[in-house]
Order: sequence, then structure tokens, then C-alpha cells
Amino acid sequence: MKLSFDVLSKDPGSSARSGLIHTAHGPVETPAFAPVASQGTVKGLTHAQVEDLGANLLLMNSYHLYLRPGVETIAGLGGLHAFTSWRKAILTDSGGFQIYSLSPLAKVKTEGVRFASHLDGTKVFLSPEDVVDIQLKLGSDICMALDYFLPYPASREKMKAAVETTSLWARRSRLHFEGRAAGQQLWGINQGSVDWDLRQKSIEDILEIGFDGYALGGLGLGEPKSELLETVERSCRLLPEDKPRYLMGMGYVADILEAVERGMDLFDCVLPTRNARNGTLFTSRGKLVINNQKYARDPRPLDEGCACFTCRNFSRAYLRHLYERQEITAAVLNTIHNLHYYLDIFREIRQSIPLRLFADLKRKILANQEEELP
Amino acid sequence: MKLSFDVLSKDPGSSARSGLIHTAHGPVETPAFAPVASQGTVKGLTHAQVEDLGANLLLMNSYHLYLRPGVETIAGLGGLHAFTSWRKAILTDSGGFQIYSLSPLAKVKTEGVRFASHLDGTKVFLSPEDVVDIQLKLGSDICMALDYFLPYPASREKMKAAVETTSLWARRSRLHFEGRAAGQQLWGINQGSVDWDLRQKSIEDILEIGFDGYALGGLGLGEPKSELLETVERSCRLLPEDKPRYLMGMGYVADILEAVERGMDLFDCVLPTRNARNGTLFTSRGKLVINNQKYARDPRPLDEGCACFTCRNFSRAYLRHLYERQEITAAVLNTIHNLHYYLDIFREIRQSIPLRLFADLKRKILANQEEELP
Repeated sequence: MKLSFDVLSKDPGSSARSGLIHTAHGPVETPAFAPVASQGTVKGLTHAQVEDLGANLLLMNSYHLYLRPGVETIAGLGGLHAFTSWRKAILTDSGGFQIYSLSPLAKVKTEGVRFASHLDGTKVFLSPEDVVDIQLKLGSDICMALDYFLPYPASREKMKAAVETTSLWARRSRLHFEGRAAGQQLWGINQGSVDWDLRQKSIEDILEIGFDGYALGGLGLGEPKSELLETVERSCRLLPEDKPRYLMGMGYVADILEAVERGMDLFDCVLPTRNARNGTLFTSRGKLVINNQKYARDPRPLDEGCACFTCRNFSRAYLRHLYERQEITAAVLNTIHNLHYYLDIFREIRQSIPLRLFADLKRKILANQEEELP
Repeated sequence: MKLSFDVLSKDPGSSARSGLIHTAHGPVETPAFAPVASQGTVKGLTHAQVEDLGANLLLMNSYHLYLRPGVETIAGLGGLHAFTSWRKAILTDSGGFQIYSLSPLAKVKTEGVRFASHLDGTKVFLSPEDVVDIQLKLGSDICMALDYFLPYPASREKMKAAVETTSLWARRSRLHFEGRAAGQQLWGINQGSVDWDLRQKSIEDILEIGFDGYALGGLGLGEPKSELLETVERSCRLLPEDKPRYLMGMGYVADILEAVERGMDLFDCVLPTRNARNGTLFTSRGKLVINNQKYARDPRPLDEGCACFTCRNFSRAYLRHLYERQEITAAVLNTIHNLHYYLDIFREIRQSIPLRLFADLKRKILANQEEELP
């Protein structure tokens, strides 16, 4: 494994750190937020808009792309970068999350997972090796090993089996990946929910195999917040300093700040983009539901402190009108704002760490979030 | 009436001309195409994208904006330019087209028109003076007088009555507009379908009243093409040289070229934007239906001769994938392409006239349109 990550600075008062993930499609400064582009686009935006917002890494979904347009189609067109024309880094998930959450008929066996396409019911079997092959063909910068997770809560016995399956698959993924990748990384996922014995065992297994980065999976599914944060904290202590750490699918800014403080480097979530399309906007002072009648004549921007294209140009009244009239442009402008909000907070986080101002920044963001939106 | 229009050059071989419509929000070079932004936005695009495409004039719908968010709301926020943040020129239609086409209960009387909102059934009565007031409050650069038109075909008797009502309303609109507008123009609409006696009478009435620009209404509703073009040609001969001429709602490029040749200056149509959202793309070689399976692995851009953002960056295969997956971004990228296609043809038309190349350009565009799309 070549060098995949540099730690650039560490917060003296916590485990927060800033760094750089190196990819063949440019560096990704951490702590980083990867906007979700399931089908190869951030919903509603052009890549030019996403780049303008400062995103250096997109998460695309192997599962969705495997079903449509198909891996052979994408590979035949030169891989995911050529197919989508996204020039910066791409992380693809293993598809596990979509298989378990979108395919109620998914059956996990030692060899792999059998499921039915949520689009047309087609029966599919994927082994961990298949999932590596898919991502190799896609040409993802960061590939994720197939893991197995359970909804929360699950019995200890079932969870133990899921951890064992995840470790077995991780080993097979790593073996299969070796020698086949060119300029790509494979990251391992550990499981075990908030059961520390199981999580610890899972991390130890995954570490023993060795990956370019380490992800905590199966969290944010309804566990008590304190147990979740305790799990993140203990996990980060076990993980090596010189590899990036990825907390999958966690999206609330308050949680992200806690996780950064405990040593996490990478995040992804549909929250800013999905909420934008549903008319829920994040601001420095709290959430704003744009369809609210009280904004019908409000000349202010969504967030008076925000410098995004939407806030620089448009009033709440106009945005409410577009949303209420179900204009596509409402989804576009709202997505620009919410993604700017997220990416800007990550920029602030990254800047705060070498300046030893992370604790101040965290306090400031959390305090403002509690104020009532005017 | 102050000067609203300059003719810059005339085609020696036809009635085509290039010119400038002067507005308080910048000049509009003619022949011009006004993209439709019914609710205050081109569907799917940001104003920045629309400006980048070169649009200097948008058509917004008085009827839609009157119903939502309401004229008082827009006026309270500083008018349509301030409300939408669109900085260039705005033309608002009178709402007549929407009233007659969206409100089956519309009743026309001498005093005005009574109709039920297509959104919630609210009963509304609007006089020609009301329609002027609405557009004055909106602050439109170009306001249109309320007209009355009938579906094609209509009996001569009914059509004669519609022309009379249109003339009566035009006179009342002009009287009401006088002295109330600041930096705004009022354009008159003539009716009469392709019945030349009626059309001529309508034009003479409207000319006698006097407007800043003259629109041909009630065309493109199914009349035989030859009669339509004959009507356009004769109408242009009656209309003064020094006022802009507007052919409302006509959108096929072939028809636009014929109308430009006969002396029309301004066009609007939902065709490029609506077709884009429905996956029909215009190219220099004909129409392309992006959902067609044959494009699933096609690495070429929509149009190999096109310099738009979409064609510079994306393959037919990717665009088909986004369309098939119902991604919002498909509507965005397709709209960028189709609007670019239209606005670029208008740019070519404007450039061709002073160079005496309009006939060549027309021939070239029409010849290529007949080729089969590869």
C-alpha cells in the first residue's frame, strides 16, 4: 500500500486533526464532507456548480450504478470519471447499505449476498470479490469493501455473526484487490453497532487485514447518542494515526463536530441535498422550512451570514414562491445553499485545527444552532 | 412614446432586419428569442446559467404571478426584477393566453374577463385596465395589452367580435397606461387568425391607437402553414418600420426563420425548455430523443458541433442515464443545451443580416434539419 494520507495538524485539546487524502484525481483535504451523487450527479446540480462549492470528493453508489446503466456500460465508456465527467475524486460505497435497505429480499450467505433489484426484481448475487471488481471497473479512487450490517437494535448473536461475515469478506476483498488496482485505494469497514466488544473485535480484524482507510459502518441507525459517540471515541483510539477514518452516513452538523473532535476525518450524508429538495434549509441560526407562510414576503436571504450564490441573490420570499410552485429551480437553489453550508463548515473546521481554534469553532456553531430562527 | 427600437441593418434580399429594443434593464438585440420563465425562473436553471447562455429578455407570465405569489407581494418586495433578481429585461404577457387556455370557465364581456383560478377555483375578474395595473406594479419592461383570442378554427362572426373586443381593450389599455408608467413600454396585440380582412382591421385599429411594439397574437394554433406565413408577411408590411414586431408563442426554428425573413423581430416559446425536460433535444442535424436505447453507450455529445456546457462535458450515454433515472440534473443539462441551441441560432441570425448572409444561413439550417440524426 502506498501512502494514502497525510496528517497535517492536530488539535492540542482534542483528537481532531486535519489532513490530506491523496487520490489520482487530486487531494481531498480533511476533515472532509463527500456530497452524495448516487447516480453520478449531485441531484439538481451541474458538476460546475458542485466544484464551485468546493467539493473535492463525491460519493457515488455502486449498487445504483451496477443496476443502471451497468458496470460494463460505464467501463466501456472509460470508467466513472469519463462517464460522469466529474474530474475530482470519487468514493464508491460497496452497495451493502443499498442492498440491505432497498432490497427486502436480501439473503446473506458466507459466499456473498443475494438480492432482488429494487427496480425490476432481477435476482442478483454479489460476492465480496464481485464488489471489488465492480469498483475496479468503475475506476473509483476510493473503493469500499463489502460489509454486512444489521438494523438497530439486533441481537448480540446476530451482530456477532455479522461482524464475522464482515471480517471474512474484508479479507477476501483485500486479497482480491491486491495487484488488480491501479491508483485506487481499498478501505475496510468495521461493524458491531455500539457493542464495544464486537466493535473492537471487528476493528482488530480489519486492522490485521490492512486497508488504505478505515470506516465505521452501521452507526447512526438509532443508537443512543452517548453510546454512538463513545463508540466513535474508542474506535479512533484503536485506529492508526496515519490512515484516514470515515464515519459513514452521519450528517447532522452537531454529530459531525463531535466526531471530528474524536478523530474522524471523512463524512458523507444525503442530509443537506435531500433536505434541500424537501425545502428544509440549514442556516447558521438553525433550520428553516421554506414553505412556511411567514416567509411569503420576507426579503431577507435564507441566512444573512451566508455568501452562497442563493443567499447573495435571492430572498426567502422568492425561494418560497419557487418551492411552493414546485419549480425545479427551487431544488437547485436550495441544494446550492445547503451544500455550501456544509462545505463551508468543513472549511472552517479545517482552518480551525492548525490555528488551535477548533474548540471555539465548535462552541460557536453549536451555540448558534440552538437559537430560534427569526 | 419615447424611442423604443432601433433598426440596425436590413437584409437586402428579404424583409429580415436586425435591431435593438431599448429597455430600462438593458438593450435586447433582435431578432431575439425570449426564454419562458413563467413563475419567475427558467425551469431548472439559475439566472446565472440563463445569463451565461446569452439571454437578455425573459418572458414571465402575469397570470401565474398574479395567482401566486400575488402582485401585491411582488410589488411589496420592489417589483419583479427585485423579487426574482433577474437583472435584464422582462416582458410580461397579458395573461390572456393562460386565462383562455387554463380556465375553461373564462367568460369574456365588454368590461373584461371573468375566470376561475386553475389552482384553487377562486373567481377573478380582470379588466384591461387591471391587466395594465398588474404589469405596472410588476415593473415589467415590456407590458402587453389584454387581448381576446379564439381557438382555431372559429367562425368568422365570433372572430370579428374577438377582434372588436381586442381593439376596444387595446384602446382602454393605452389610455390607462398613459402617464402611469416609468421606463416601461406597452405593446399592442392584434388578432384575426389567418382571415386577412379581420387581421388587417385589427392591425389598423391597434396602429391607430399606437404602441411601443406590435404583436401578432392568436397564431400557431393549427392554421395551415402557408396561410400563417402569408398572414405574417402581410402583417409586417402594414406594421411601421420603427417599431418592434413580436410573433407570440411560435417556436419551431423553421417557422422562426420564415418569420424573420418576413420581418419579425421577437419570439418566445416554451418549446426548447419544455422539450428539454421531456428529453427531446434539438441539434444542428435534427431532433434527438435522449431516452432512446441506442444512446445507452454513445460516447458522443448531443451535437458534435455544439459548444454548450452540456455538449462540452457530457456524453449522450451519461445524459440518457440521468434522464432514465429521472435525475433533476437531466432537466438542467438538457435545458442548457436546448436554450443554447435556440439562443445561438438567434445570434447567428443577428450576425448574418448585416453581413447579407441571412439567406445562406437559413438555407444551411433548414437543409441540415432535414438530415437524419445519426
